[in-house]
Amino acid sequence: MNNSDTPAAQDMHLHRHPEQHMINSATITDIVIGMSDGLTVPFALAAGISGAVQGTGLIIVAGLAEIAAGSIAMGLGGYLAGKTEIDHYNSELRREYEEVEKLPHIEKQEVKDFFSSLGLSEEIQDKAVEEVTKDKKKWVELMMKYELGLDKPDPKRARTSAFNISVSYVVGGLIPLSPYFFFNDSIEGLKISTVITLISLFVFGYFKSKVTGVNPVAGAVRVMIIGAIAAGCAFGIARLIQS
Amino acid sequence: MNNSDTPAAQDMHLHRHPEQHMINSATITDIVIGMSDGLTVPFALAAGISGAVQGTGLIIVAGLAEIAAGSIAMGLGGYLAGKTEIDHYNSELRREYEEVEKLPHIEKQEVKDFFSSLGLSEEIQDKAVEEVTKDKKKWVELMMKYELGLDKPDPKRARTSAFNISVSYVVGGLIPLSPYFFFNDSIEGLKISTVITLISLFVFGYFKSKVTGVNPVAGAVRVMIIGAIAAGCAFGIARLIQS
Repeated sequence: MNNSDTPAAQDMHLHRHPEQHMINSATITDIVIGMSDGLTVPFALAAGISGAVQGTGLIIVAGLAEIAAGSIAMGLGGYLAGKTEIDHYNSELRREYEEVEKLPHIEKQEVKDFFSSLGLSEEIQDKAVEEVTKDKKKWVELMMKYELGLDKPDPKRARTSAFNISVSYVVGGLIPLSPYFFFNDSIEGLKISTVITLISLFVFGYFKSKVTGVNPVAGAVRVMIIGAIAAGCAFGIARLIQS
Repeated sequence: MNNSDTPAAQDMHLHRHPEQHMINSATITDIVIGMSDGLTVPFALAAGISGAVQGTGLIIVAGLAEIAAGSIAMGLGGYLAGKTEIDHYNSELRREYEEVEKLPHIEKQEVKDFFSSLGLSEEIQDKAVEEVTKDKKKWVELMMKYELGLDKPDPKRARTSAFNISVSYVVGGLIPLSPYFFFNDSIEGLKISTVITLISLFVFGYFKSKVTGVNPVAGAVRVMIIGAIAAGCAFGIARLIQS
Protein backbone atom coordinates (compact mmCIF):
# COMPACT_ATOMS: atom_id res chain seq x y z
CA MET A 1 0.00 0.00 0.00
CA ASN A 2 2.97 2.30 0.01
CA ASN A 3 2.90 4.32 -3.14
CA SER A 4 6.09 6.30 -3.26
CA ASP A 5 8.77 3.62 -3.41
CA THR A 6 7.60 1.20 -6.08
CA PRO A 7 9.85 0.36 -9.00
CA ALA A 8 7.71 2.69 -11.11
CA ALA A 9 8.32 5.61 -8.80
CA GLN A 10 12.00 4.84 -8.61
CA ASP A 11 12.39 4.61 -12.32
CA MET A 12 10.66 7.89 -12.94
CA HIS A 13 13.24 9.54 -10.77
CA LEU A 14 15.37 10.57 -13.72
CA HIS A 15 18.83 11.92 -13.29
CA ARG A 16 18.54 15.55 -14.22
CA HIS A 17 15.24 16.88 -12.90
CA PRO A 18 14.39 14.63 -9.99
CA GLU A 19 11.80 16.86 -8.28
CA GLN A 20 9.52 17.48 -11.20
CA HIS A 21 9.52 13.81 -12.14
CA MET A 22 8.84 12.68 -8.59
CA ILE A 23 5.48 14.49 -8.63
CA ASN A 24 4.35 12.95 -11.91
CA SER A 25 5.60 9.53 -10.91
CA ALA A 26 3.61 9.41 -7.68
CA THR A 27 0.37 10.13 -9.56
CA ILE A 28 1.17 7.59 -12.26
CA THR A 29 2.03 4.99 -9.63
CA ASP A 30 -1.36 5.58 -7.96
CA ILE A 31 -3.15 5.18 -11.28
CA VAL A 32 -1.20 1.98 -12.01
CA ILE A 33 -2.08 0.52 -8.60
CA GLY A 34 -5.77 1.40 -8.86
CA MET A 35 -6.24 0.45 -12.51
CA SER A 36 -4.41 -2.86 -12.38
CA ASP A 37 -6.56 -4.19 -9.53
CA GLY A 38 -9.67 -2.45 -10.87
CA LEU A 39 -9.40 -4.12 -14.26
CA THR A 40 -8.51 -7.56 -12.89
CA VAL A 41 -10.69 -8.25 -9.85
CA PRO A 42 -14.13 -7.04 -11.05
CA PHE A 43 -13.44 -8.78 -14.39
CA ALA A 44 -12.63 -12.07 -12.65
CA LEU A 45 -15.55 -11.73 -10.25
CA ALA A 46 -18.03 -11.10 -13.08
CA ALA A 47 -16.53 -14.06 -14.96
CA GLY A 48 -16.94 -16.22 -11.85
CA ILE A 49 -20.59 -15.32 -11.37
CA SER A 50 -21.19 -15.86 -15.11
CA GLY A 51 -20.15 -19.46 -14.46
CA ALA A 52 -23.01 -19.83 -11.98
CA VAL A 53 -25.99 -17.74 -13.15
CA GLN A 54 -27.85 -17.20 -16.42
CA GLY A 55 -28.96 -13.58 -16.12
CA THR A 56 -26.78 -10.50 -15.86
CA GLY A 57 -28.73 -8.59 -13.17
CA LEU A 58 -26.85 -10.17 -10.30
CA ILE A 59 -23.50 -9.76 -12.02
CA ILE A 60 -24.15 -6.02 -12.24
CA VAL A 61 -25.18 -5.84 -8.57
CA ALA A 62 -22.18 -7.86 -7.39
CA GLY A 63 -19.82 -6.04 -9.77
CA LEU A 64 -20.87 -2.59 -8.60
CA ALA A 65 -20.76 -3.72 -4.96
CA GLU A 66 -17.23 -4.99 -5.54
CA ILE A 67 -16.13 -1.78 -7.25
CA ALA A 68 -17.51 0.25 -4.33
CA ALA A 69 -15.89 -2.04 -1.75
CA GLY A 70 -12.57 -2.31 -3.57
CA SER A 71 -12.21 1.40 -4.30
CA ILE A 72 -13.04 2.36 -0.71
CA ALA A 73 -10.78 -0.31 0.78
CA MET A 74 -7.88 0.62 -1.51
CA GLY A 75 -8.40 4.38 -1.30
CA LEU A 76 -8.88 4.55 2.47
CA GLY A 77 -6.20 1.90 2.89
CA GLY A 78 -3.78 4.05 0.88
CA TYR A 79 -4.80 7.12 2.89
CA LEU A 80 -4.14 5.37 6.21
CA ALA A 81 -0.84 3.98 4.95
CA GLY A 82 0.18 7.55 4.13
CA LYS A 83 -0.93 8.80 7.55
CA THR A 84 0.92 5.94 9.23
CA GLU A 85 4.05 6.85 7.30
CA ILE A 86 3.88 10.43 8.61
CA ASP A 87 3.26 9.32 12.23
CA HIS A 88 6.05 6.83 11.93
CA TYR A 89 8.46 9.40 10.50
CA ASN A 90 7.70 11.88 13.28
CA SER A 91 8.10 9.31 16.05
CA GLU A 92 11.45 8.16 14.60
CA LEU A 93 12.52 11.80 14.28
CA ARG A 94 11.81 12.41 17.98
CA ARG A 95 13.72 9.24 18.87
CA GLU A 96 16.76 10.25 16.81
CA TYR A 97 16.86 13.71 18.46
CA GLU A 98 16.69 12.02 21.86
CA GLU A 99 19.44 9.55 20.99
CA VAL A 100 21.70 12.28 19.61
CA GLU A 101 21.18 14.11 22.90
CA LYS A 102 21.57 11.17 25.28
CA LEU A 103 23.89 8.73 23.46
CA PRO A 104 26.06 10.96 21.25
CA HIS A 105 28.94 8.43 21.24
CA ILE A 106 26.81 5.61 19.87
CA GLU A 107 25.20 7.90 17.30
CA LYS A 108 28.58 9.25 16.22
CA GLN A 109 29.78 5.68 15.74
CA GLU A 110 26.71 5.01 13.58
CA VAL A 111 27.56 8.01 11.39
CA LYS A 112 31.12 6.70 11.16
CA ASP A 113 29.85 3.23 10.20
CA PHE A 114 27.81 4.84 7.45
CA PHE A 115 30.86 6.65 6.01
CA SER A 116 32.88 3.46 6.40
CA SER A 117 30.23 1.56 4.39
CA LEU A 118 30.76 4.06 1.56
CA GLY A 119 34.39 2.95 1.35
CA LEU A 120 36.07 6.01 2.86
CA SER A 121 39.39 5.83 4.72
CA GLU A 122 39.59 6.12 8.53
CA GLU A 123 40.97 9.62 8.21
CA ILE A 124 38.17 10.98 6.02
CA GLN A 125 35.56 9.05 8.08
CA ASP A 126 36.63 10.87 11.24
CA LYS A 127 36.74 14.28 9.58
CA ALA A 128 33.35 13.75 7.94
CA VAL A 129 31.81 12.63 11.27
CA GLU A 130 33.20 15.72 12.95
CA GLU A 131 31.69 18.03 10.32
CA VAL A 132 28.30 16.37 10.16
CA THR A 133 27.80 16.14 13.92
CA LYS A 134 28.51 19.86 14.43
CA ASP A 135 24.98 20.67 13.28
CA LYS A 136 22.37 18.60 15.15
CA LYS A 137 19.72 19.12 12.46
CA LYS A 138 22.04 17.89 9.68
CA TRP A 139 23.15 15.01 11.92
CA VAL A 140 19.61 13.80 12.60
CA GLU A 141 18.65 14.28 8.94
CA LEU A 142 21.52 12.02 7.90
CA MET A 143 20.54 9.33 10.44
CA MET A 144 16.91 9.43 9.31
CA LYS A 145 17.66 9.23 5.63
CA TYR A 146 20.67 6.92 5.46
CA GLU A 147 20.56 4.85 8.63
CA LEU A 148 16.80 4.32 8.74
CA GLY A 149 16.07 4.89 5.05
CA LEU A 150 13.20 7.28 5.83
CA ASP A 151 12.37 10.22 3.57
CA LYS A 152 10.26 13.07 4.90
CA PRO A 153 6.72 12.21 3.74
CA ASP A 154 4.55 14.87 2.12
CA PRO A 155 1.41 15.41 4.27
CA LYS A 156 -0.80 16.24 1.26
CA ARG A 157 0.25 13.03 -0.52
CA ALA A 158 -1.96 10.75 1.60
CA ARG A 159 -5.20 12.47 0.54
CA THR A 160 -4.26 12.90 -3.12
CA SER A 161 -3.05 9.32 -3.34
CA ALA A 162 -6.29 7.94 -1.81
CA PHE A 163 -8.33 9.91 -4.33
CA ASN A 164 -6.21 8.84 -7.34
CA ILE A 165 -6.27 5.16 -6.41
CA SER A 166 -10.03 5.12 -5.76
CA VAL A 167 -10.93 6.87 -9.01
CA SER A 168 -8.56 4.62 -11.01
CA TYR A 169 -10.11 1.54 -9.43
CA VAL A 170 -13.64 2.68 -10.34
CA VAL A 171 -12.63 3.54 -13.92
CA GLY A 172 -10.76 0.24 -14.27
CA GLY A 173 -13.62 -1.76 -12.77
CA LEU A 174 -16.34 -0.28 -14.99
CA ILE A 175 -14.55 -1.47 -18.15
CA PRO A 176 -15.04 -5.25 -17.61
CA LEU A 177 -18.49 -4.69 -16.11
CA SER A 178 -19.92 -2.52 -18.91
CA PRO A 179 -20.84 -5.32 -21.39
CA TYR A 180 -23.15 -6.94 -18.82
CA PHE A 181 -25.37 -3.85 -18.96
CA PHE A 182 -26.15 -4.58 -22.62
CA PHE A 183 -26.76 -8.35 -22.51
CA ASN A 184 -29.35 -10.50 -20.76
CA ASP A 185 -27.34 -13.70 -21.05
CA SER A 186 -24.35 -13.90 -18.73
CA ILE A 187 -22.18 -15.94 -21.11
CA GLU A 188 -22.74 -13.40 -23.92
CA GLY A 189 -21.71 -10.63 -21.56
CA LEU A 190 -18.68 -12.63 -20.45
CA LYS A 191 -17.46 -13.06 -24.03
CA ILE A 192 -17.53 -9.33 -24.79
CA SER A 193 -16.17 -8.51 -21.32
CA THR A 194 -13.24 -10.88 -21.88
CA VAL A 195 -12.35 -9.31 -25.21
CA ILE A 196 -12.63 -5.73 -23.95
CA THR A 197 -10.77 -6.45 -20.71
CA LEU A 198 -7.90 -8.40 -22.26
CA ILE A 199 -7.36 -5.55 -24.75
CA SER A 200 -7.50 -3.01 -21.90
CA LEU A 201 -5.08 -5.08 -19.81
CA PHE A 202 -2.71 -5.27 -22.76
CA VAL A 203 -2.82 -1.50 -23.38
CA PHE A 204 -2.54 -0.81 -19.67
CA GLY A 205 0.30 -3.32 -19.23
CA TYR A 206 2.13 -1.80 -22.19
CA PHE A 207 1.92 1.69 -20.73
CA LYS A 208 2.80 0.49 -17.23
CA SER A 209 5.85 -1.39 -18.52
CA LYS A 210 7.08 1.64 -20.43
CA VAL A 211 6.88 3.67 -17.25
CA THR A 212 8.73 1.06 -15.19
CA GLY A 213 11.39 0.50 -17.85
CA VAL A 214 10.51 -3.12 -18.65
CA ASN A 215 10.08 -4.48 -22.20
CA PRO A 216 6.58 -3.14 -23.04
CA VAL A 217 5.22 -6.08 -25.05
CA ALA A 218 6.47 -8.72 -22.60
CA GLY A 219 5.07 -6.67 -19.71
CA ALA A 220 1.73 -6.22 -21.48
CA VAL A 221 1.43 -9.97 -22.10
CA ARG A 222 2.24 -10.73 -18.46
CA VAL A 223 -0.41 -8.32 -17.15
CA MET A 224 -2.97 -9.81 -19.56
CA ILE A 225 -2.15 -13.36 -18.49
CA ILE A 226 -2.66 -12.55 -14.80
CA GLY A 227 -6.13 -11.22 -15.58
CA ALA A 228 -6.96 -14.28 -17.67
CA ILE A 229 -5.76 -16.72 -14.98
CA ALA A 230 -7.68 -14.90 -12.24
CA ALA A 231 -10.88 -14.86 -14.33
CA GLY A 232 -10.43 -18.51 -15.39
CA CYS A 233 -10.02 -19.68 -11.80
CA ALA A 234 -12.98 -17.64 -10.58
CA PHE A 235 -15.13 -19.05 -13.38
CA GLY A 236 -13.97 -22.62 -12.67
CA ILE A 237 -14.60 -22.38 -8.94
CA ALA A 238 -18.08 -20.95 -9.46
CA ARG A 239 -18.91 -23.77 -11.93
CA LEU A 240 -17.63 -26.42 -9.51
CA ILE A 241 -19.75 -25.14 -6.62
CA GLN A 242 -22.83 -24.77 -8.77
CA SER A 243 -22.70 -28.30 -10.23
CA MET B 1 2.33 -3.64 -4.69
CA ASN B 2 5.83 -3.12 -3.51
CA ASN B 3 6.25 -5.03 -0.28
CA SER B 4 9.62 -4.16 1.09
CA ASP B 5 9.39 -0.43 1.70
CA THR B 6 6.10 0.06 3.51
CA PRO B 7 6.05 1.88 6.84
CA ALA B 8 5.73 -1.53 8.50
CA ALA B 9 8.91 -2.78 6.90
CA GLN B 10 10.73 0.41 7.73
CA ASP B 11 9.67 0.35 11.34
CA MET B 12 10.70 -3.24 11.84
CA HIS B 13 14.16 -2.23 10.77
CA LEU B 14 15.33 -1.79 14.37
CA HIS B 15 18.63 -0.18 15.19
CA ARG B 16 20.72 -3.00 16.49
CA HIS B 17 20.02 -6.12 14.43
CA PRO B 18 18.76 -4.84 11.09
CA GLU B 19 19.24 -8.00 9.05
CA GLN B 20 17.31 -10.41 11.21
CA HIS B 21 14.44 -7.97 11.58
CA MET B 22 14.30 -7.24 7.87
CA ILE B 23 13.45 -10.88 7.15
CA ASN B 24 10.64 -11.05 9.68
CA SER B 25 9.34 -7.68 8.64
CA ALA B 26 8.98 -8.61 4.97
CA THR B 27 6.84 -11.65 5.85
CA ILE B 28 4.72 -9.68 8.29
CA THR B 29 4.25 -6.93 5.73
CA ASP B 30 3.03 -9.50 3.20
CA ILE B 31 0.57 -10.93 5.71
CA VAL B 32 -0.67 -7.45 6.59
CA ILE B 33 -1.19 -6.59 2.90
CA GLY B 34 -3.01 -9.84 2.12
CA MET B 35 -5.13 -10.01 5.28
CA SER B 36 -6.25 -6.39 5.28
CA ASP B 37 -7.66 -6.59 1.76
CA GLY B 38 -8.86 -10.18 2.28
CA LEU B 39 -10.90 -9.27 5.33
CA THR B 40 -12.33 -6.07 3.85
CA VAL B 41 -13.25 -6.69 0.22
CA PRO B 42 -14.99 -10.13 0.44
CA PHE B 43 -16.79 -8.89 3.57
CA ALA B 44 -18.07 -5.82 1.76
CA LEU B 45 -18.95 -7.78 -1.38
CA ALA B 46 -20.96 -10.35 0.60
CA ALA B 47 -22.69 -7.50 2.44
CA GLY B 48 -23.49 -5.86 -0.89
CA ILE B 49 -25.04 -9.00 -2.37
CA SER B 50 -26.96 -9.55 0.89
CA GLY B 51 -28.62 -6.23 0.13
CA ALA B 52 -29.94 -7.64 -3.15
CA VAL B 53 -30.73 -11.37 -2.69
CA GLN B 54 -32.57 -13.49 -0.11
CA GLY B 55 -30.62 -16.75 -0.25
CA THR B 56 -26.96 -17.31 0.58
CA GLY B 57 -26.04 -19.65 -2.32
CA LEU B 58 -25.05 -16.86 -4.64
CA ILE B 59 -23.17 -15.01 -1.92
CA ILE B 60 -21.00 -18.09 -1.43
CA VAL B 61 -20.37 -18.45 -5.18
CA ALA B 62 -19.54 -14.77 -5.61
CA GLY B 63 -17.51 -14.69 -2.41
CA LEU B 64 -15.35 -17.69 -3.36
CA ALA B 65 -14.95 -16.33 -6.92
CA GLU B 66 -13.79 -13.02 -5.43
CA ILE B 67 -11.35 -14.73 -3.05
CA ALA B 68 -9.88 -16.71 -5.96
CA ALA B 69 -9.66 -13.63 -8.18
CA GLY B 70 -8.31 -11.35 -5.47
CA SER B 71 -5.69 -13.77 -4.19
CA ILE B 72 -4.42 -14.54 -7.69
CA ALA B 73 -4.41 -10.88 -8.74
CA MET B 74 -2.62 -9.80 -5.55
CA GLY B 75 -0.23 -12.76 -5.42
CA LEU B 76 0.76 -12.73 -9.09
CA GLY B 77 0.73 -8.94 -9.00
CA GLY B 78 3.15 -8.99 -6.10
CA TYR B 79 5.30 -11.57 -7.89
CA LEU B 80 5.51 -9.46 -11.03
CA ALA B 81 6.23 -6.32 -9.01
CA GLY B 82 9.16 -8.18 -7.44
CA LYS B 83 10.39 -9.41 -10.83
CA THR B 84 10.07 -5.90 -12.26
CA GLU B 85 12.09 -4.55 -9.37
CA ILE B 86 14.92 -6.98 -10.17
CA ASP B 87 14.86 -6.20 -13.92
CA HIS B 88 14.77 -2.52 -13.14
CA TYR B 89 17.69 -2.79 -10.72
CA ASN B 90 19.81 -4.67 -13.24
CA SER B 91 19.08 -2.24 -16.08
CA GLU B 92 19.95 0.74 -13.85
CA LEU B 93 23.12 -1.05 -12.75
CA ARG B 94 24.22 -1.48 -16.35
CA ARG B 95 23.45 2.18 -17.04
CA GLU B 96 25.48 3.37 -14.07
CA TYR B 97 28.50 1.28 -15.11
CA GLU B 98 28.21 2.77 -18.60
CA GLU B 99 27.94 6.32 -17.30
CA VAL B 100 30.90 5.87 -14.94
CA GLU B 101 32.89 4.68 -17.97
CA LYS B 102 31.74 7.30 -20.47
CA LEU B 103 30.93 10.37 -18.37
CA PRO B 104 33.23 10.10 -15.34
CA HIS B 105 33.23 13.89 -14.80
CA ILE B 106 29.46 14.13 -14.52
CA GLU B 107 29.30 11.06 -12.29
CA LYS B 108 32.07 12.43 -10.05
CA GLN B 109 30.14 15.69 -9.73
CA GLU B 110 27.06 13.66 -8.69
CA VAL B 111 29.08 11.91 -5.98
CA LYS B 112 30.32 15.32 -4.86
CA ASP B 113 26.75 16.67 -4.81
CA PHE B 114 25.79 13.75 -2.61
CA PHE B 115 28.55 14.49 -0.09
CA SER B 116 27.68 18.18 -0.27
CA SER B 117 24.04 17.33 0.57
CA LEU B 118 25.31 15.61 3.74
CA GLY B 119 26.73 18.95 4.87
CA LEU B 120 30.44 18.23 4.36
CA SER B 121 32.97 20.97 3.58
CA GLU B 122 34.45 21.42 0.08
CA GLU B 123 37.75 19.97 1.26
CA ILE B 124 36.26 16.75 2.66
CA GLN B 125 33.87 16.47 -0.31
CA ASP B 126 36.80 16.41 -2.72
CA LYS B 127 38.78 13.91 -0.67
CA ALA B 128 35.78 11.63 -0.23
CA VAL B 129 35.02 11.74 -3.97
CA GLU B 130 38.62 10.84 -4.72
CA GLU B 131 38.50 7.82 -2.39
CA VAL B 132 35.12 6.52 -3.50
CA THR B 133 35.78 6.80 -7.22
CA LYS B 134 39.03 4.83 -6.98
CA ASP B 135 37.03 1.59 -6.85
CA LYS B 136 34.46 1.40 -9.66
CA LYS B 137 32.35 -1.20 -7.88
CA LYS B 138 32.08 0.93 -4.72
CA TRP B 139 31.42 4.00 -6.87
CA VAL B 140 28.52 2.41 -8.76
CA GLU B 141 27.14 0.92 -5.52
CA LEU B 142 27.06 4.38 -3.98
CA MET B 143 25.30 5.86 -7.02
CA MET B 144 22.73 3.05 -7.04
CA LYS B 145 21.92 3.25 -3.37
CA TYR B 146 22.16 6.95 -2.60
CA GLU B 147 21.58 8.73 -5.88
CA LEU B 148 18.85 6.44 -7.21
CA GLY B 149 17.66 5.05 -3.87
CA LEU B 150 17.78 1.46 -5.16
CA ASP B 151 18.64 -1.47 -2.87
CA LYS B 152 19.72 -4.77 -4.39
CA PRO B 153 16.49 -6.84 -4.47
CA ASP B 154 16.47 -10.44 -3.25
CA PRO B 155 15.51 -12.78 -6.16
CA LYS B 156 13.77 -15.29 -3.88
CA ARG B 157 11.62 -12.58 -2.30
CA ALA B 158 9.26 -12.25 -5.30
CA ARG B 159 8.09 -15.87 -5.07
CA THR B 160 7.84 -15.99 -1.27
CA SER B 161 6.02 -12.68 -1.20
CA ALA B 162 3.48 -13.81 -3.80
CA PHE B 163 2.76 -16.96 -1.78
CA ASN B 164 2.43 -15.12 1.54
CA ILE B 165 0.09 -12.48 0.15
CA SER B 166 -2.13 -15.03 -1.62
CA VAL B 167 -2.50 -17.30 1.39
CA SER B 168 -3.18 -14.34 3.69
CA TYR B 169 -5.85 -13.07 1.31
CA VAL B 170 -7.57 -16.49 1.23
CA VAL B 171 -7.45 -16.85 5.03
CA GLY B 172 -8.68 -13.27 5.50
CA GLY B 173 -11.46 -13.69 2.94
CA LEU B 174 -12.83 -16.95 4.37
CA ILE B 175 -13.52 -15.28 7.74
CA PRO B 176 -16.32 -12.92 6.58
CA LEU B 177 -17.67 -15.55 4.17
CA SER B 178 -17.92 -18.44 6.65
CA PRO B 179 -21.24 -17.48 8.31
CA TYR B 180 -23.08 -17.63 4.98
CA PHE B 181 -22.35 -21.37 4.84
CA PHE B 182 -24.52 -21.89 7.94
CA PHE B 183 -27.52 -19.70 7.13
CA ASN B 184 -30.14 -19.78 4.40
CA ASP B 185 -31.20 -16.19 4.89
CA SER B 186 -28.70 -13.63 3.60
CA ILE B 187 -29.50 -10.99 6.22
CA GLU B 188 -28.95 -13.52 9.04
CA GLY B 189 -25.59 -14.42 7.50
CA LEU B 190 -24.74 -10.74 7.12
CA LYS B 191 -25.39 -10.06 10.82
CA ILE B 192 -23.02 -12.80 12.01
CA SER B 193 -20.50 -11.96 9.29
CA THR B 194 -20.49 -8.31 10.39
CA VAL B 195 -19.85 -9.22 14.04
CA ILE B 196 -17.08 -11.74 13.23
CA THR B 197 -15.42 -9.50 10.66
CA LEU B 198 -15.45 -6.33 12.75
CA ILE B 199 -13.88 -8.26 15.64
CA SER B 200 -11.29 -9.75 13.27
CA LEU B 201 -10.55 -6.32 11.76
CA PHE B 202 -10.10 -4.91 15.26
CA VAL B 203 -7.71 -7.70 16.31
CA PHE B 204 -5.88 -7.49 13.00
CA GLY B 205 -5.73 -3.67 13.13
CA TYR B 206 -4.41 -3.83 16.68
CA PHE B 207 -1.62 -6.23 15.71
CA LYS B 208 -0.82 -4.29 12.52
CA SER B 209 -0.60 -1.00 14.43
CA LYS B 210 1.72 -2.51 17.02
CA VAL B 211 4.02 -3.65 14.24
CA THR B 212 3.99 -0.24 12.51
CA GLY B 213 4.48 1.67 15.76
CA VAL B 214 1.10 3.47 15.76
CA ASN B 215 -1.21 3.64 18.80
CA PRO B 216 -2.77 0.13 18.67
CA VAL B 217 -6.33 0.95 19.77
CA ALA B 218 -6.64 4.00 17.52
CA GLY B 219 -5.18 1.97 14.64
CA ALA B 220 -7.55 -0.94 15.31
CA VAL B 221 -10.57 1.38 15.30
CA ARG B 222 -9.46 2.97 12.03
CA VAL B 223 -9.06 -0.41 10.28
CA MET B 224 -12.48 -1.50 11.57
CA ILE B 225 -14.12 1.71 10.34
CA ILE B 226 -12.72 1.28 6.81
CA GLY B 227 -14.24 -2.22 6.66
CA ALA B 228 -17.58 -0.94 7.94
CA ILE B 229 -17.70 1.95 5.47
CA ALA B 230 -16.79 -0.30 2.52
CA ALA B 231 -19.45 -2.84 3.51
CA GLY B 232 -22.05 -0.15 4.16
CA CYS B 233 -21.51 1.45 0.75
CA ALA B 234 -21.57 -1.90 -1.06
CA PHE B 235 -24.82 -2.83 0.73
CA GLY B 236 -26.36 0.59 -0.04
CA ILE B 237 -25.42 0.48 -3.73
CA ALA B 238 -26.81 -3.05 -4.14
CA ARG B 239 -30.09 -2.01 -2.44
CA LEU B 240 -30.40 1.06 -4.67
CA ILE B 241 -29.94 -0.93 -7.89
CA GLN B 242 -32.32 -3.65 -6.77
CA SER B 243 -35.18 -1.30 -5.81
